[in-house]
Amino acid sequence: MADPWEECMNYAIALARKAGEVIREALTEEVTVMIKSSPADLVTVTDQKVENMIISSIKEKYPSHSFIGEESVAAGAGSILTDNPTWIIDPIDGTTNFVHRFPFVAVSIGFVVKKQMEFGVVYSCVEDKMYTGRKGKGAFCNGQKLQVSKQRDITKALLVSELGSNRDPEVIKTVLSNMQRLLSIPIHGIRAVGTAAVNMCLVATGGADAYYEMGIHCWDMAGAGIIILEAGGVLLDISGGPFDLMSRRIIAANCQAIAERIAKEIQIIPLQRDDAVN
Amino acid sequence: MADPWEECMNYAIALARKAGEVIREALTEEVTVMIKSSPADLVTVTDQKVENMIISSIKEKYPSHSFIGEESVAAGAGSILTDNPTWIIDPIDGTTNFVHRFPFVAVSIGFVVKKQMEFGVVYSCVEDKMYTGRKGKGAFCNGQKLQVSKQRDITKALLVSELGSNRDPEVIKTVLSNMQRLLSIPIHGIRAVGTAAVNMCLVATGGADAYYEMGIHCWDMAGAGIIILEAGGVLLDISGGPFDLMSRRIIAANCQAIAERIAKEIQIIPLQRDDAVN
Repeated sequence: MADPWEECMNYAIALARKAGEVIREALTEEVTVMIKSSPADLVTVTDQKVENMIISSIKEKYPSHSFIGEESVAAGAGSILTDNPTWIIDPIDGTTNFVHRFPFVAVSIGFVVKKQMEFGVVYSCVEDKMYTGRKGKGAFCNGQKLQVSKQRDITKALLVSELGSNRDPEVIKTVLSNMQRLLSIPIHGIRAVGTAAVNMCLVATGGADAYYEMGIHCWDMAGAGIIILEAGGVLLDISGGPFDLMSRRIIAANCQAIAERIAKEIQIIPLQRDDAVN
Repeated sequence: MADPWEECMNYAIALARKAGEVIREALTEEVTVMIKSSPADLVTVTDQKVENMIISSIKEKYPSHSFIGEESVAAGAGSILTDNPTWIIDPIDGTTNFVHRFPFVAVSIGFVVKKQMEFGVVYSCVEDKMYTGRKGKGAFCNGQKLQVSKQRDITKALLVSELGSNRDPEVIKTVLSNMQRLLSIPIHGIRAVGTAAVNMCLVATGGADAYYEMGIHCWDMAGAGIIILEAGGVLLDISGGPFDLMSRRIIAANCQAIAERIAKEIQIIPLQRDDAVN
């Protein structure tokens, strides 16, 4: 049977590459920074420009599809996930990195139908690494098949996570206390490259064994989520229960055992869901 | 006047490149891991093989020179810095990354005469980035001149640091509490790629504004230290006083103001110096 979403996926890859070119070009120019929810939650005109470019291109080709985009939501658009084919877009995952020219900046495009992730595209544009995953067909980086690590022992695991952009003292305290608990298991270490999508793709390559974070959004996870699954990994909610794309929290690991062991250590930060109705 | 150390520097670059090839080759094979000071302080036969290769090659060409190498010190060699021309070598900076194939692994070679850093070479071998710095002659990455960022406002700064490999509960507590203090200033964020040398080189490129860490060693800092200085940055002790290569602690920043502001927040972890006589 022909793949019903093959054309969409190829279009997503082409758009991500084009968006990456715009971002690389913008990195050579002066960047003007605006602030969103905290002094560490940044946005630039390039985020908005790239998202508009991606969404308008897709709308033209697939007028019946739905969209959830980071900057559209910031501008007041809804983010309710329906059964309709939905493109979930982060034009620049790692905006703080982009602002500083820290060399990990990704375009993330996830495609979800009936609330199931069908494919994902993450283009780490400074490194020129194109990560893709298609349900049932594997995950790849620049054409090379991805496979998560074989590690089963948490005491030999390397994790990726982030300190995040929330500057509420209670939230910082919980984020750091979670790291303290994990380090004390002990584990080999925790790395942080500053973008959820690239962190997750590093788990898909086997370079890290697991990623966890709270406070991120569906557009940070929708592209890389299916890439992890197709590389042989698992997604869990931070509670250890089933993963929920709209919950703003995730454990993405090479295996169930390591994901569950992480869940056991994590204290949960209360968060408003992406699909909460205000 | 001819540069008295030009030949040495060219030799260091050639050796770092050759060592990087050995490391890249080893990344395609099974890695056997041994433990040093803690379950998170790792070493492999490749660390030892690469250090032996580098030191024996230099000894043959410069028999009167001195050496401080991570694995030689681990094997019982001294690490007292004299006025003699001294090569300070970390064969694999980021051994934990190497073990996991997390893609940041560097060969670091520093060259110190009369206790002054004369040149440094850091080869991030998976990325194929050759960073070099020569006193008075600038810092470069793959031939491109490096310049630290122009940021002067700590609240807009991006830092790099590490959680480290020490699993002593008191040390973990201080490391995390230092991050809490810095995040609360607030700052834009903290990244961690898992190697001191590459973290420092990221400051030299302007991609991050400052790096700080305690518990690292002279072989982690000697290569990248002069690269930071030659890119226009500053090195301070974690106390805010003058930088001391053998002290196991560093603040490497784009400017004095940001370095001093970081020093103000940091609680100091007691450490035995690299040149302590047991």
